[in-house]
Amino acid sequence: MTKARTRYILGVDLGGTNIVAGAMPEDGSREIAVRSEPTHPERGSEAVVDRIVSMLAQVISDVTETHDAKPHDFLGVGVGAPGPLDRERGIVVVAPNLGWRDFPLRDAISDRIRLPATLDNDANCATVGEWWRGAAQGGRNVVGITIGTGIGGGIVIDGQLYHGSSDVAGEIGHTTIDSTGRYCRCGNYGCLEAYASGPAIALRAREALERDEVSALHKMVKGDLDLLTAATVYEAAHRGDALALEVVRDTARFLGTGIANLLNTVNPDVVVITGGVTRAGDRLFEPLRAEVKRRAFRPAVAACRIVPGTLEGTAGVVGAVATFKQQKLGAV
Amino acid sequence: MTKARTRYILGVDLGGTNIVAGAMPEDGSREIAVRSEPTHPERGSEAVVDRIVSMLAQVISDVTETHDAKPHDFLGVGVGAPGPLDRERGIVVVAPNLGWRDFPLRDAISDRIRLPATLDNDANCATVGEWWRGAAQGGRNVVGITIGTGIGGGIVIDGQLYHGSSDVAGEIGHTTIDSTGRYCRCGNYGCLEAYASGPAIALRAREALERDEVSALHKMVKGDLDLLTAATVYEAAHRGDALALEVVRDTARFLGTGIANLLNTVNPDVVVITGGVTRAGDRLFEPLRAEVKRRAFRPAVAACRIVPGTLEGTAGVVGAVATFKQQKLGAV
Repeated sequence: MTKARTRYILGVDLGGTNIVAGAMPEDGSREIAVRSEPTHPERGSEAVVDRIVSMLAQVISDVTETHDAKPHDFLGVGVGAPGPLDRERGIVVVAPNLGWRDFPLRDAISDRIRLPATLDNDANCATVGEWWRGAAQGGRNVVGITIGTGIGGGIVIDGQLYHGSSDVAGEIGHTTIDSTGRYCRCGNYGCLEAYASGPAIALRAREALERDEVSALHKMVKGDLDLLTAATVYEAAHRGDALALEVVRDTARFLGTGIANLLNTVNPDVVVITGGVTRAGDRLFEPLRAEVKRRAFRPAVAACRIVPGTLEGTAGVVGAVATFKQQKLGAV
Repeated sequence: MTKARTRYILGVDLGGTNIVAGAMPEDGSREIAVRSEPTHPERGSEAVVDRIVSMLAQVISDVTETHDAKPHDFLGVGVGAPGPLDRERGIVVVAPNLGWRDFPLRDAISDRIRLPATLDNDANCATVGEWWRGAAQGGRNVVGITIGTGIGGGIVIDGQLYHGSSDVAGEIGHTTIDSTGRYCRCGNYGCLEAYASGPAIALRAREALERDEVSALHKMVKGDLDLLTAATVYEAAHRGDALALEVVRDTARFLGTGIANLLNTVNPDVVVITGGVTRAGDRLFEPLRAEVKRRAFRPAVAACRIVPGTLEGTAGVVGAVATFKQQKLGAV
């Protein structure tokens, strides 16, 4: 009797800045041959597809060499991309960061690498990744929040990624926490994203710096406030800068308000937060959990752990593999 | 061959003001022997249970007489009650409007009428009722919102009532729409309920009346602003009173903000609103839908109809019957 061959699933996480690609054995036990390259969306969609295809070819070749895999051991590729998407038709409907509109990404990749492919929202993939192999493992109802240039999210209900009635479910960044508040690039006022995304954190710090001359942030950006990013703010907070600490506390409060709304409606057992801001650790999570506790019902708070993701940089790829498996093989 | 006997399920909707009870054939095709009596919570929990039991006895006797039913044709009773509940143990954990704490309502009823019983949240029942037999029929993912003394809600996901990880799911009244806004009786600031419940509508009108002397509302309550209710406000709006119209428009905007948050996270295909305020009709629903359209993503708006409930006064009973059926017989 020969041992059954290991089969592999490829994953792609397409972002506005970077493309991450890799492979996993079907059982998701480990990440193999993960690579990251800049997206260069300004070179056009065909160039982006070329890059994805060559990255996948490299992943396949790596896995083949290091794990003695054969071409037929690769089952297919899961792709995560910014939404909104038409999942059924495999189309990226609008992706401002890529400059795309109605682009048939799934089939463009599938045709070139001659493997079946699936397409899902990048924040959905990150959520499923953390649920399958990361910080949200064991959760039954999970909310994932991805904080970067924007704030995205995904929802797992009863162990299944929940897409809603038109693939919009989980768009947590565009829920209102202050109905007459800050303008959001989506056109509304008071969206969570307008307060707690990376650029929003930097903007709030810049505003505060205009009436504060002693903050270390001035020096850190050599007086050029345009250079200020969320990462600088968190670094200054780490060093104990009072203004930066206040911005971080406010960010936690805003996020806590948005998350409390989810606790009182979706009532998850895990909220997992991914993205650069989670590197702030307890400085972010302690006041965030306190705000959630203040605003959400006690049984909802008691049922839920709020944790940073653990698959730094690869949650999207792992989740893309998982969504392929869920869609094509029925379950993960 | 004899025709299969029709079997019946009883339903109870326990509110702070009234108890509604009735029966339905197992297939939910019609409501039979529905009756309503005042709750009189001040007389204590035993008196409330006595009343429920005597109402159910009357319903059973009515159905027996008018539909030639036999005692064994009654399968059991679904009970809807204010939450939070411990569904599994059949306990009302806290019900401020009833003055109850840890009261084993399900078994108190079941023991007395000697039939199996189930317990679920009243707003969940209203949502399931409208989904099973009312305005949300045919919906796959449904959000129900009940507006009265408070604002409750329920969520149906893929044709199943969704309870979340600790029976809190759907508490829409206690989602924040203005993080530094009005004080809510739950202890937070800016909850939807603090703006759009019946008492909140009356309060906002009273505040506005303090700087307005021409509004017809003054006369309608004979100068005693304590007598002002949401119903008075809607009546004055119907008559064209400018101040009342503004209060109604603001209410629609607040509700629209809270509902837009649900569209961007839960992405339902139906939002069904029940309770007295829906009698305002288009005067409420037109600006409400406009606010949702302004705030929610286009595909979420396109996928969703926002409608008033159609089971006026009986959604809770119908839903209690449906939840009994779903829990005891597996599906509706």
